[in-house]
Amino acid sequence: MARQNIYDNETFFGEYRKLREREVNANNLFELPTLFSLLPDLEGKKVLDLGCGSGERCIDYLKKGAASVTGVDISEKMLAVAEAENNDPRITYLKMPMEEIGSIDDVFDVVISSLAFHYVEDFGGVVANVYRLLRDGGIFLFSQEHPLATCYSGKGDRWTRDENGKKLYANIADYCVERRNDSTWFVEGVQRYHRMFSTIVNTLCDAGFRILKMAEPYPTEELVKKYPEYYDLYHKPDFLFVKVVK
Amino acid sequence: MARQNIYDNETFFGEYRKLREREVNANNLFELPTLFSLLPDLEGKKVLDLGCGSGERCIDYLKKGAASVTGVDISEKMLAVAEAENNDPRITYLKMPMEEIGSIDDVFDVVISSLAFHYVEDFGGVVANVYRLLRDGGIFLFSQEHPLATCYSGKGDRWTRDENGKKLYANIADYCVERRNDSTWFVEGVQRYHRMFSTIVNTLCDAGFRILKMAEPYPTEELVKKYPEYYDLYHKPDFLFVKVVK
Repeated sequence: MARQNIYDNETFFGEYRKLREREVNANNLFELPTLFSLLPDLEGKKVLDLGCGSGERCIDYLKKGAASVTGVDISEKMLAVAEAENNDPRITYLKMPMEEIGSIDDVFDVVISSLAFHYVEDFGGVVANVYRLLRDGGIFLFSQEHPLATCYSGKGDRWTRDENGKKLYANIADYCVERRNDSTWFVEGVQRYHRMFSTIVNTLCDAGFRILKMAEPYPTEELVKKYPEYYDLYHKPDFLFVKVVK
Repeated sequence: MARQNIYDNETFFGEYRKLREREVNANNLFELPTLFSLLPDLEGKKVLDLGCGSGERCIDYLKKGAASVTGVDISEKMLAVAEAENNDPRITYLKMPMEEIGSIDDVFDVVISSLAFHYVEDFGGVVANVYRLLRDGGIFLFSQEHPLATCYSGKGDRWTRDENGKKLYANIADYCVERRNDSTWFVEGVQRYHRMFSTIVNTLCDAGFRILKMAEPYPTEELVKKYPEYYDLYHKPDFLFVKVVK
């Protein structure tokens, strides 16, 4: 089973860090505010962060009252940044692929994952382990690349444009063909797994979760006035959020 | 509030009847088999069919053991066909818009609706009434046009084709703009309401339902070999099904 560790690629790591450090990016504008708006009350809670990367969210969760945070990531480089810049006695960083969290011998109140599951081939396996790691009534909240984004194969045109280059349509092909798409994002061969909406929902329901909320964030009108390039997201949202309860 | 009754339009009614009478159509190939595969056990159950049209499904539900079926439709013409062709002492046909089912003074075990909700503006209102009309533990199963289909505005090209006319991409625009789309289907001005996936899911969850299953049917490989034109559905499914429990 593929366990991608693209974040330990030297070029990818450098470029990704630069992207996330830009003040204006889709993560800061859409992903993070939506993540925070969907967070359950973290006061006194034991939190597990899957795909924690450099640990900024682990610190955020402590600030929101979490009693402890366990951050899991496959990337040594990202965890080195986490240990250097976002360490705290209440945070434990674990280097492991998400596919192996079944080996964690603990129970959590809240499991959160930001933009990591589209890298995971065995979504059902991870979901089953999250269910096992949560206490009854515990909350599981994750974001991933939107299915209208993961279905992009990396080949052909992603957009149909008018003669002035304005994006008219998102070109959607093979939405119903679930597959691994290898695309270029800073480096070649970044692997994303495309799953249909219904597969994501059914995997969660079949594991025993109850869906509480979904979100597909898009910009406000004010934001589009300020950054017209983000009108794209009305055609094809970048992110999907799902919040469920055990 | 708009309460569309396009099925009482003479031209629409005639063309629609012809379409549904064709042996090979998307309803027979994908919608109906999926609907039947998702049906709960109907043995001895009181069933409510919302948007029952000419009543074929009401008869089907009786054959599957339902004790009684109440069929609701806004269209006098469709109900006239239902009374003439699909009558049974255990079936009651009611002429009313779905927006008024709150006036029904009864409780049902199962509520089913096939391809009607994309015509309804006040989806939340209908869902709240369905919840009230169901007994605890009752099942609500519906299909609607897929959100990738309802977001088609009726303007511009629906597909990007290669030089031979082969469909390469579904042209998706303004998926995140929820709205009424007026399009031409047999007649002008057929009104469909576009809602995002997350809106459909959240409306059901907020009303108190628990999601059990979703489906976005697409053809099997064998079927595409027989009817290559249906490969389109891999790019953009026609139907969305949701099954929930009170």
